This record gives sequence, structure tokens and C-alpha cells, in this order.
Amino acid sequence: MDHTGNIIFIMEIIGTIAFASSGALLGIRKRMDVFGVCVLGVITAVGGGLTRDVILGITPPGMFQNPVYTATAMAVSLILFISNYKGRDKTGEKRLVIYDKVMTVFDAIGLGIFTVVGINTAVDAGYNQLFLLTFVGVITGVGGGLLRDIMAQEKPYILTKHVYACASIAGALACAFLIRMMNRLPATVIGAAVVISIRMLAAHYHWNLPRVNRE
Amino acid sequence: MDHTGNIIFIMEIIGTIAFASSGALLGIRKRMDVFGVCVLGVITAVGGGLTRDVILGITPPGMFQNPVYTATAMAVSLILFISNYKGRDKTGEKRLVIYDKVMTVFDAIGLGIFTVVGINTAVDAGYNQLFLLTFVGVITGVGGGLLRDIMAQEKPYILTKHVYACASIAGALACAFLIRMMNRLPATVIGAAVVISIRMLAAHYHWNLPRVNRE
Amino acid sequence: MDHTGNIIFIMEIIGTIAFASSGALLGIRKRMDVFGVCVLGVITAVGGGLTRDVILGITPPGMFQNPVYTATAMAVSLILFISNYKGRDKTGEKRLVIYDKVMTVFDAIGLGIFTVVGINTAVDAGYNQLFLLTFVGVITGVGGGLLRDIMAQEKPYILTKHVYACASIAGALACAFLIRMMNRLPATVIGAAVVISIRMLAAHYHWNLPRVNRE
Repeated sequence: MDHTGNIIFIMEIIGTIAFASSGALLGIRKRMDVFGVCVLGVITAVGGGLTRDVILGITPPGMFQNPVYTATAMAVSLILFISNYKGRDKTGEKRLVIYDKVMTVFDAIGLGIFTVVGINTAVDAGYNQLFLLTFVGVITGVGGGLLRDIMAQEKPYILTKHVYACASIAGALACAFLIRMMNRLPATVIGAAVVISIRMLAAHYHWNLPRVNRE
Repeated sequence: MDHTGNIIFIMEIIGTIAFASSGALLGIRKRMDVFGVCVLGVITAVGGGLTRDVILGITPPGMFQNPVYTATAMAVSLILFISNYKGRDKTGEKRLVIYDKVMTVFDAIGLGIFTVVGINTAVDAGYNQLFLLTFVGVITGVGGGLLRDIMAQEKPYILTKHVYACASIAGALACAFLIRMMNRLPATVIGAAVVISIRMLAAHYHWNLPRVNRE
Repeated sequence: MDHTGNIIFIMEIIGTIAFASSGALLGIRKRMDVFGVCVLGVITAVGGGLTRDVILGITPPGMFQNPVYTATAMAVSLILFISNYKGRDKTGEKRLVIYDKVMTVFDAIGLGIFTVVGINTAVDAGYNQLFLLTFVGVITGVGGGLLRDIMAQEKPYILTKHVYACASIAGALACAFLIRMMNRLPATVIGAAVVISIRMLAAHYHWNLPRVNRE
């Protein structure tokens, strides 16, 4: 039991690092200063969990009680800023080319982990309805990236990236369904793997969903 | 009493359909794919009620407990997407012309219904202060459309459409005032009618409010 | 004690006036009509406190229980609109030139006051953890301006202005630290003074923080 809690905490930290990286990289790309980069990194990392806790009535939200998430996100943002700042040389162009790929990977990891972490928090708070668990998971997963995109005046990933909300919903459904049938840990790991796999496959093979053409 | 509850539930579903349509149509216009359209439809439909429940401390918000609102919004978005997808032909241009009118009507209906539904929820939660009821009603009414516009990177209706917040405030005041003097049902219907009438008249006759000119 | 409460209430009203002014001025500059200007003024003024109360689980938020904040913000917005509306003459150009300076001052005052007011509210609600107090203070301080910028489709101050979040964090830390060691009133005033001083000095001397250059 405690073992499971530890593993979920480790997953949370990994998700925090991944989302903080995606926020900080966007800030660096948009030429924000060091504080703007840190703010965007922190908001991306804690935004999903904050939204989840407000919705579940967990007040004050967990991130206010334990500074570790904010501190981790701040440290990651600073490291990324410094390494990019010092690297202001001929490799800058090349960095920019690989930027989108790295950002997509980090975002997918954060999306997958926060989706299942959100479901675990809801289960801990005493909920077990399939729809509620799934929806809370999806909101936790997409919340941070959505706040990042809104604040940075980008088109939200959730509306524009093919198979983004879709990946989160699939993994959340899997996790919420399995968590009521088996031990929590494998259900959580499987759910996260489903989200990350679908999202990465969709990004790699440029899966397209139909859209209405108007010309 | 139960009768009133049923009618308010029917109004909620109509409001959900109207707001989901306005969100989905905006997504279609912005050439989002099928998931983006559904996400925008759902957020527009449930955003106002979600904001209201968070503010009133109703956790988890009603939409998490009853999937009917999300399912309705998803179905409406899908139907609109499919009908527009199949209709990709010479009528496309004509559709685009009537788009704004349809969107305005749907948005006005959603605005009116959610404004009074918000007041009813606050009354059910034990509040009866005129200011609180009015403000909660307005936030419930404008919340969904505001989230829609922010996510789609549009200028928010609430800031740019003439007589938008104004219509919601007038109807909310009428409903909050009457609900303490008469049966709940007529107060609710009158309030919604006030919002929708003012909004539609303003849109039809292009009522203008003064603004500061700088040339 | 009651004396302290009164002074904090007066600070809140000053902060409300300052933030409402910054929101209304942005609306006027963006040529919104009178209602849009009022909506933006009110949201800027009450947004920080609303966010804080939702996070602390204070439901309904204070601004719903006491109309004075909304009424003050509405009145300030109307007065600014009318005075600018009547002033539509050759001085318009000159007004626009001084606009940014006035806006920066009002925003700095609002930022400083709401940062420390947020901490006081958290203390009243029974919290005393340094990290929580600081974070709640910062969110209360930056929340209104952030909502203003997102709704008006501006680049958020918090991400782009040099030494903005930084000023709020410094003053919040000072206030949260001192409030546990001395009387509440001096700690509050010192905290606000720290925020406003740092922010104004940074704006006046164009302090720059490092950013990553890519050319």
C-alpha cells in the first residue's frame, strides 16, 4: 500500500518534470525572460492538479501544502533556461529544429501520468463512479497544458493536436475501469502507458482526424 | 415541486444543446478536427455550470455526477460535425453566411437558460441574497461562452458583443427578484425570456453602446 | 484588532480601485463599448480574490457576499469611461501617451495590495505555513491582472513584464515571514510596500532580466 503510494509519488514527480519542461521550453521559444519561463513552467506543471483539487473540493489544493511540486518545476525551468542561455551559439538553429519533438515527448509523458494520477486522487477522495473518475483524470491530464497554451497565447493542444484529448480519454477509461477490478498499481501503469502510446504513435505517424474543409 | 424540477431539467438540456452547438460551430468554422469540435462543444456547454458549482462549493460539480450533460453536448457536437462534413459542397459558402445568425441565436438561448438555471442552483443551495443570486446567475450564463472564446482565441463575446453581459444581468435581476416573491417556475421562465429577448433584439437591430473613439 | 481590520478593508478598496482602473483603461484602449469596459474592470478587480477564495475553499467567495467590491469597480470603470468619452478631442493623442505609465502605476498598486490582502485572508482562514501563505498571496496578487490580459487577448503581464511575478513573490515572502513575528498591520504594510517599490523601480529603470536570444 505504502509501496504503491511511493510509486505514484515518483510518477507525479516525473510528470511534473515533463510538464515543467514543456512549459519552460515554450517560454524560451517565445523569448520570455527567466521569470516568465519559470512561471510558465510552474503553471504547466501544477495547473492540472490544481484544477482537479478545486473540482474535488480538496482545499487547499495539494500543491499548496507540499512545496515539492512547485520547487521541482522551478528547478527544471531554471536548468532549461540556463542550458539554453549558455548555448546561445551556432547550435541554436539546430536546437530549434529538435524543439518540437522534445516538447511533444515531454507533453505526452505529462499527459499520461497526470491523467492516471488524477484518477488515483479521486479514488483516494472516495469516488468510484466510472464517468467521474474518467473525467477527473482527463481534466488533470489536459489542465496544465491548456493553461500553458492559453497563457502563452498559443492554439490549445487539446483543440488542435490530433488525438490529444482522445489519448487521455482512452487511457483514463482504461485506468478507471481496471482500478475497480485489480490492484491500483498495475491499473495506473497500464492507463499511463495507453495514453503515452496512443499520443506518441499519433504524433509519429501524423494520424489525422477528419475535419470539415471549406474552400 | 417535482414538476418544477422536471421543467428546469428540460431547460438545462435545451441550454446544453444550444451552447454545445455554438461551441461546435465555432470549432467547425476554425477548421478543427472532430475531437477539437467535440471538446469545444462540451466545454461551452458545461463550463458555466462547472464555474458556478466551484464558486458555490458544490463538489464534485453536478456535471461530474451526472454524465447526461456531457453526453448530450458530445452527441450534438458530433451531429453538427457530421452534417457539415457531408455537406462539403457548393452550399458551403451559403452555410458560412448563415453561420453567424444561427450561432447568435443558439448563444442567446444558452445565455438565457443558464443564467436562470444558475440562480435556481444557488437557491437550492440555500442562498437568497439578491446580489449573490444575480451574480451567480450571470457567471453561469456567461461562463461557457467565455471559456469557448478564450480557448478558440476569439475576442470574448462578453467584452465585444453589444448588450451581452447587460442582457444576462437584466434577466438575472428579474429572476432573482421575482423568485423571492412568486413560484419558482414563472420567475425562472420570465428571467430566461428577458435575457433572450434583450439579446436577440440587440443583435437584430444592431443596438450599439457608446465607446470611446480615438482617431 | 478591529482597527487592523478597518485598515485592511481600506487597502482592499484602494486595490480594487487600482485594478479596476487598469482593466477599464485597457478596455478603453481596445475600443470596447461601455459594458465591455465595465466587465473588464470588474473582472480585473475581483479576479484575484475570487481565485484565492476558491483555492482556500471559502465558498461562496467574499465578493459574492459583499457587493461593495463589485460596485466600486463598476463605478470606477464608468467614471473612467465617461471622462475619456467626453475627452474625445485633440488631447486624445496625449492621453494615449501617458496611458501606459498610469496603467503601470495602478497595476503595481493593485499587485502589491492584493498580494498582502491574500495572505491576510489565508491567515484568517487558519493557515500559517510559509509556502502556502506566500503562494496564496502571489496568486491573489497576479490573478486579476492575468484574467484581464487573457480576456483582452493581451500577452499576460506576468509572463512578459520584467520583475512582475518576482516583485509579488518578494513582497509575499516578506509579509508571510513577518506576519508570524510581529503585529499583522506593519507586516502587511511592509509587504505591500516591497511589492510596489520593486515593481515601480523595475518599470522606471527598465530593469531587464536575462532571456535566451535566438537570431
